[in-house]
Amino acid sequence: MSPTQRPRVNRQFALKTRPVGLPKESDFELVEAPIAELKDGEVLVRAAYLSVDPYMRGRISGMKSYAAPVEIGQTMVGGGVAQVIESKNAAFAPGDFVDIYMGWQEYAISNGKNLRKLDPSVPVSTALGVLGMTGLTAYFGLLDVCDPKPGETVVVSGAAGAVGSIVGQIAKIKGCRTVGIAGGDDKIEWITTECGYDAAFNYKTTADYAAKLKELCPNGIDCYFDNVGGPLTDAVFTALNVHSRISICGQISQYNNTKPEMGPRLFGALIVYRAKVQGFLVSDYMSRAAEAIQEMSAWVREGKLKYREDIVEGFENMPKAFIGLFHGENIGKRIVKI
Amino acid sequence: MSPTQRPRVNRQFALKTRPVGLPKESDFELVEAPIAELKDGEVLVRAAYLSVDPYMRGRISGMKSYAAPVEIGQTMVGGGVAQVIESKNAAFAPGDFVDIYMGWQEYAISNGKNLRKLDPSVPVSTALGVLGMTGLTAYFGLLDVCDPKPGETVVVSGAAGAVGSIVGQIAKIKGCRTVGIAGGDDKIEWITTECGYDAAFNYKTTADYAAKLKELCPNGIDCYFDNVGGPLTDAVFTALNVHSRISICGQISQYNNTKPEMGPRLFGALIVYRAKVQGFLVSDYMSRAAEAIQEMSAWVREGKLKYREDIVEGFENMPKAFIGLFHGENIGKRIVKI
Repeated sequence: MSPTQRPRVNRQFALKTRPVGLPKESDFELVEAPIAELKDGEVLVRAAYLSVDPYMRGRISGMKSYAAPVEIGQTMVGGGVAQVIESKNAAFAPGDFVDIYMGWQEYAISNGKNLRKLDPSVPVSTALGVLGMTGLTAYFGLLDVCDPKPGETVVVSGAAGAVGSIVGQIAKIKGCRTVGIAGGDDKIEWITTECGYDAAFNYKTTADYAAKLKELCPNGIDCYFDNVGGPLTDAVFTALNVHSRISICGQISQYNNTKPEMGPRLFGALIVYRAKVQGFLVSDYMSRAAEAIQEMSAWVREGKLKYREDIVEGFENMPKAFIGLFHGENIGKRIVKI
Repeated sequence: MSPTQRPRVNRQFALKTRPVGLPKESDFELVEAPIAELKDGEVLVRAAYLSVDPYMRGRISGMKSYAAPVEIGQTMVGGGVAQVIESKNAAFAPGDFVDIYMGWQEYAISNGKNLRKLDPSVPVSTALGVLGMTGLTAYFGLLDVCDPKPGETVVVSGAAGAVGSIVGQIAKIKGCRTVGIAGGDDKIEWITTECGYDAAFNYKTTADYAAKLKELCPNGIDCYFDNVGGPLTDAVFTALNVHSRISICGQISQYNNTKPEMGPRLFGALIVYRAKVQGFLVSDYMSRAAEAIQEMSAWVREGKLKYREDIVEGFENMPKAFIGLFHGENIGKRIVKI
């Protein structure tokens, strides 16, 4: 379809049932919707790439969270990179690629606010990854929350994921020793050869996480960037240094629990180590996003920051691509190509 | 005994056995030791007041902590206020009262380093409480870790203790709404009438902590100063506000556990609330102690900062006074008068 050819129908994935535990494909429903005529100031865009991310599990849960949940029957939320195919807004022309929080659908109409025109000199898909939400998450969660110093040891869980693979590289740029935890030998291979992790281990084939961390972090752990939570985090607590900083980015091991998982109480150790644990959301840093993207773009151009995209083809595979995140299928940023 | 009369023997409490669970009096042994002749530069002091504090439980545990443990046969560590009875140090004269980390013994010889001469215009016992270690703990743990803003809600566990009773008052001075948690109606009475807590509840007679916190904190919780840990802290996590700050000062509910207590994993909530949990030790703030004591002394003189001492009489009662802390016997700062 050329940029100017108008589609007749939009396809969307709506939330059909609130998942209990691990989401199923049948929790989502593919529906069709008409595409309205544009009013002045509006643009019609067609998705090129849509993002699937672990945080979306929180949006389809009934639990209180930082954003309102997706209601049953509503289109799933999420970020995308789309191409303008019709425009009644002078700021956007057909053919432009934009970053847009459009949700799981093939087409969207926008009034132009919160649309960011993309620089076509870099692959536009990076706006969903290294130069988008997950890259910014790595950047601010590491630099602002952990504030790592040269020579410090930074441990990252989910180290082969969209965020973790970037965290390790930024930590290296800042002069740290980096130790990654991931679930697969292929992931360990990639993060140690390509992402510059100094050491890493596959938690799926490691019996004693604490002993392994002690071996790989002979000087203790100064910073921990946590995407996973659960027993991995418990093990990190056995090797913390005084004044260590822990950035809680995600807790993917917990997202599909049907009741809160119990674990050893960890706050006493925070006194022993005078340590800090801080949760954060990238959305709190949007006023500084442009500056961060500029710096990371330079690192990408200089070859200091590598990234990998895990592309799933076809809009109809959105639910499957999303669910696969919880099986650890992806290496790098998982994106659905539409 | 006059300040200049030289004693012949020193009495000390040595650690006899490493306690399992709640310490017993028989874990300590009263022993006698000779008192050496002074060398040049030294002073001999006699204890006037000795401190018992919950942190001492950590010192007699075999667990890794922030300081080396007291070994079996060693004199128990701890702070004291003592009077100089002999001096070969020009900076100290017989009769002077000093603040000294002398441990559980009646006499000590010091080379003068780490001795702080006390201002006799305020009761010298305050050097163990409001104008000493526990007061400084309240000051820095609240102001530095939580950084409370006027109008914010500050919740304090262990609110009738040596630290918690001061935390609430400093929070009031800073314009906050204060909610205390303590274990006894007499404690609740004292902190609400004397320490200015806006609201408080007795956790021993409250079935649903979360519901009570919701009732007493209609605007949610911005700061939590935690001396206790365990289920009280779990309940606080149900009422946190975005960007809330939690200062971990103590975890007295956990100190006598013989194995780690299990509780719901809380780190996911830190993402939802973009909240911070930070452990601290007052010893990290010693470079700023003089400034804090000056400010708190002024508050005491102005009647803005009230304190209560829970005096136990007699050196031989040190172990009993210490163990009573874990039964919540004390209101305010427990001190043993020698």
